[in-house]
Amino acid sequence: MKKYAIKISYDGKNYSGWQEQPGKVTVQGVMQDALAQIFHEKVKLYASGRTDAGVSALGQVAHFRVEELPRGFVGYINTLLPEDIRVLNVAEVSEDFHVRFSSKKKTYIYKMYMSKVEVPVYERGAWRIPTNIDIEKMKKEMRALKGKHDFSAFCASNTAVEDKVRQIYSISIKKVGSEVVFSITGNGFLYNMVRIIVGTLVEIGLGKKDDIQSILESCDRAKSGKTAPAKGLVLKEVVYKDLKWA
Amino acid sequence: MKKYAIKISYDGKNYSGWQEQPGKVTVQGVMQDALAQIFHEKVKLYASGRTDAGVSALGQVAHFRVEELPRGFVGYINTLLPEDIRVLNVAEVSEDFHVRFSSKKKTYIYKMYMSKVEVPVYERGAWRIPTNIDIEKMKKEMRALKGKHDFSAFCASNTAVEDKVRQIYSISIKKVGSEVVFSITGNGFLYNMVRIIVGTLVEIGLGKKDDIQSILESCDRAKSGKTAPAKGLVLKEVVYKDLKWA
Repeated sequence: MKKYAIKISYDGKNYSGWQEQPGKVTVQGVMQDALAQIFHEKVKLYASGRTDAGVSALGQVAHFRVEELPRGFVGYINTLLPEDIRVLNVAEVSEDFHVRFSSKKKTYIYKMYMSKVEVPVYERGAWRIPTNIDIEKMKKEMRALKGKHDFSAFCASNTAVEDKVRQIYSISIKKVGSEVVFSITGNGFLYNMVRIIVGTLVEIGLGKKDDIQSILESCDRAKSGKTAPAKGLVLKEVVYKDLKWA
Repeated sequence: MKKYAIKISYDGKNYSGWQEQPGKVTVQGVMQDALAQIFHEKVKLYASGRTDAGVSALGQVAHFRVEELPRGFVGYINTLLPEDIRVLNVAEVSEDFHVRFSSKKKTYIYKMYMSKVEVPVYERGAWRIPTNIDIEKMKKEMRALKGKHDFSAFCASNTAVEDKVRQIYSISIKKVGSEVVFSITGNGFLYNMVRIIVGTLVEIGLGKKDDIQSILESCDRAKSGKTAPAKGLVLKEVVYKDLKWA
């Protein structure tokens, strides 16, 4: 058996998230159906992390084990996939590679725009904020998140994970045209962490909250802001030390 | 009777363009149906310019004449429109205002991305170029288009318009993440002009053509490149001298 990693992009709009669930259309489920058609057996896919319903990916990574990959595998599997899921690349990996535990860093982006009325072009993949927000204040406050911290205040309260310490390498907010693009890179993220950070920063930009440092130190989910909607979130990239895409 | 201008945003994906056509779903047709529901009579809408099938708008402008606008008109008409069309704003205009002839300048953006495989997140509104293109060469060549020129070489050959002189105020190409965003502002545009300019610049970036100045001077549509696909094009803004939105 050989182990392979694949890079996948999907528009999350029509999926109940990554993870296979009975009776739901999920990215993992659709991908595994395509793999079963190619390999004539059930092939289990492991992802770098589950994405929630409505969350998209530019570069999700998953691994699987099979005897041998057919030639032209990427082109072949894409003919079996719906147009909102595409395999971008494949690479053989060593037996000790694990898509979840071997990852070095991950980058998410989150898009917002400000408008009293929905703007259909932006609604495809951004969260609408119905009033002006103070971007400079958001930029100033977000800096406190950089570095190694216990992110309990920015983690969905029903999470079973014990160690809530994560390291944020970089965080930025940029205005690109009329959109506000938030980007965050870290060694890993807790459940809903990016969406809670964005929701909290937006409440800061709206003047509803003001000090992210004390929210972080509280380790209390009740102190942070609402979870930002899924549609603005995109898993941009997962980086591995020894993985070289073709 | 009073005259009103409205600013409209739409996702062009599901429409056969702006202009009303029997048996086709068009933005003008859907908008006029909503206006008829409000005013109990046929209200004719005039746009700053027709957008083709699949082309989107962030700020299309249209005008119409009615006795009086009901209060809360913008909110009201948006409840009657499908979610891919939204009225963003309304303003009363003088009797001599004409949405097509009074416009001072227009800005279009065109999005592309480079990838061997379709990337679903980008496919929502960008043209995929399957190979690397030389962006610096495109930037260098595009400068020749700035200023006042006869744009016959960049106009669909079946156009009836006689005067093909237009003025380009600014033109730019920027890399935004993995997308290439082309932006062009001018006093007006010929039929398919932006898409032919983009198509030609891409052929220059691919090394298939090299001198935009001589293509421009030839005034020959046969010398320019293919018309770029509609899905990457967005009418961003139309500017009028005396029009102030609420």
